[in-house]
Amino acid sequence: MNRTQARLADGREIFFYDDEPTRRTVEDPREITRPDGGSELRYDPFLDEWVAVAAARQHRTHLPSTDQCPLCPSTAERATEIPQQDYDVVVFENRFPSFSGGEALDPGLAPRALDAVGRGEAELTSIRHAGSGRCEVVCFTPDHTASLAQLPVRRLRTVVDAWADRTAALLETGQVDQVYCFENRGEEIGVTLHHPHGQIYGYPFPTPRTRRMLDSARAYRSRTGGDLFADTLAAETRDVQSAGGGRIVARTEHWTVFVPAWARWPVEVHIYPHRPVRTLPELTEAERDDFAALYSDVLRRGDRLFATPLPYISGWQQAPLSAAEDFRLHLQLFSIRRADNKLKYLAGSESGMGVFINDIPPEQMARRLREAGSAATAATPKEDAG
Amino acid sequence: MNRTQARLADGREIFFYDDEPTRRTVEDPREITRPDGGSELRYDPFLDEWVAVAAARQHRTHLPSTDQCPLCPSTAERATEIPQQDYDVVVFENRFPSFSGGEALDPGLAPRALDAVGRGEAELTSIRHAGSGRCEVVCFTPDHTASLAQLPVRRLRTVVDAWADRTAALLETGQVDQVYCFENRGEEIGVTLHHPHGQIYGYPFPTPRTRRMLDSARAYRSRTGGDLFADTLAAETRDVQSAGGGRIVARTEHWTVFVPAWARWPVEVHIYPHRPVRTLPELTEAERDDFAALYSDVLRRGDRLFATPLPYISGWQQAPLSAAEDFRLHLQLFSIRRADNKLKYLAGSESGMGVFINDIPPEQMARRLREAGSAATAATPKEDAG
Repeated sequence: MNRTQARLADGREIFFYDDEPTRRTVEDPREITRPDGGSELRYDPFLDEWVAVAAARQHRTHLPSTDQCPLCPSTAERATEIPQQDYDVVVFENRFPSFSGGEALDPGLAPRALDAVGRGEAELTSIRHAGSGRCEVVCFTPDHTASLAQLPVRRLRTVVDAWADRTAALLETGQVDQVYCFENRGEEIGVTLHHPHGQIYGYPFPTPRTRRMLDSARAYRSRTGGDLFADTLAAETRDVQSAGGGRIVARTEHWTVFVPAWARWPVEVHIYPHRPVRTLPELTEAERDDFAALYSDVLRRGDRLFATPLPYISGWQQAPLSAAEDFRLHLQLFSIRRADNKLKYLAGSESGMGVFINDIPPEQMARRLREAGSAATAATPKEDAG
Repeated sequence: MNRTQARLADGREIFFYDDEPTRRTVEDPREITRPDGGSELRYDPFLDEWVAVAAARQHRTHLPSTDQCPLCPSTAERATEIPQQDYDVVVFENRFPSFSGGEALDPGLAPRALDAVGRGEAELTSIRHAGSGRCEVVCFTPDHTASLAQLPVRRLRTVVDAWADRTAALLETGQVDQVYCFENRGEEIGVTLHHPHGQIYGYPFPTPRTRRMLDSARAYRSRTGGDLFADTLAAETRDVQSAGGGRIVARTEHWTVFVPAWARWPVEVHIYPHRPVRTLPELTEAERDDFAALYSDVLRRGDRLFATPLPYISGWQQAPLSAAEDFRLHLQLFSIRRADNKLKYLAGSESGMGVFINDIPPEQMARRLREAGSAATAATPKEDAG
């Protein structure tokens, strides 16, 4: 791994990850300071979840013109967020973080506060904590018009190293319990910057989705004696024998891609490692190599599903530091596109009640994704930006 | 309540609720049959939730032109879903339901299936149930270009009766455990029909959001001895004394409107009845009258927040039949609009991990909603469609 570490003018950290060894001298010429007003965590006693209130984000950069892109390399005329004339992959602290600073979040804070409410010593609506955690931006390429699917596998491999390296570092800060490396792709998803990039959130708590998965894994272990993740992978693998051909999209030596039987989104694939690892840093070199090639293939299949490139959210589900239950690292990629001209919206049932309705049977989407690969699995990435 | 009950040509039920006693003879002249393929429930063992797969919905009517609207009254030339030349409020079974038919969902089905998985007698990925439950459409007015906020309070009052009457009826079917009366408003929310309408979902299970609220209410009761809903309302009421003026937007004899301290959405208001009722049918005439006027006011405030009418999701949180825990009926209204030209998207953090980030402090939104009412609370509804 070829990493160069530096700081931006306002003190934020920046890390360059290069495909090949590269000597970099980093100096940010800007006179900038951090925006006022950090985030605050507020406790929702009904859903037992923390909500981040981050007022400074309301004024974050919103769909700038290409010549104002803050994620492009700097030029002699214009200093961007990245004080280099070129880069491969770069990670830096988000200027408008949803989570930042502060001390670690004590998991006992909310229960103790509720006890205080019971004694009449605290207000139920005032259980709060100064923002803590960390938000980082990951640029995948200096090419403003590219996409992750179009990059060489070598670059994706560098991205995997960057994700793993930052996961390891954030889990050592004492402020972060779970690291989410993810990409929002496409304006339909709400992307506010077009430059190909992802994000890394270091949450100061185990996320609600993960907590529920951990609860289920624990209950499943005690009920059946098995590992929910391993058993799911085994069941999907057996199901390939079924009449419809099952829900597996692709399989390599170290990874399996499948559409879950209970997919919530029109397009949803999970990518499981065959070995039960919990976080990205545990992946071997061989597993990383294998993943980079496979992920490139999966992204290109996705872009072939509809008339336009697939808008998607793709992120790594990693075990929280605090978790002792069974868990397996996996990538979850999903899209709100359900037809060339139709999107799936999270309307009343999903957003109001948490009940998902999927219009596309998972077996059908798995078949389409298999077919999207059969003609072109070995093809090179597209040349144009699409 | 002035109700006329009938059936559409394909057997679906239809109910007319009129502001004044009205004699209706209903005959649907169309030759239509129900679309093939009902929905199926699939169990997600990771989140312990049922997901509906409803393939027939993929071909549902999508943004038809005004002269093809299926929710307008029928004319001599065109038979719509509503075989009447005029109506006030009408409710009918959705032609493309996410939940319909089948037997009741046994709450023990998933646990028993997991036991069978443990014994090697069932597949983890095949825990399913034929669709059950019910989906209905509620038209608020025959006027295609109106909105709920623009209708007379008398009409909103009829809508409340329709919601309450259908809730009571669905809870008696034996197929429905929880009833969600809601409205998706605006194309930004994913509305596929512009005619002013809402929906009623009769879920065959307690929804995930509600289950978590019930779990919290039970834990809160045992921890503090109090009712989580009553205590929240009391805390919000006390907080009006705080420097910022608190988060209460409006208060009437029977209802309080507030922005929760932990609001997840840029605009989010909850409307609580002062009496601890669990479902809509329990509301008295006086409470219904009061709500109709208040809700009209709240909707009009919402439409004054931004340059364009507020896109929103608004729905009634009602207690499931199966719940024994503390619960209080309340309306939750929220919007993804965060500025005149910006929407809040559910991207990676929200959709992938369940962690919400709100860019607008709840106290600020409460103040804006109070101000949106101060100049015009008593004003009559707008004349134009906006």
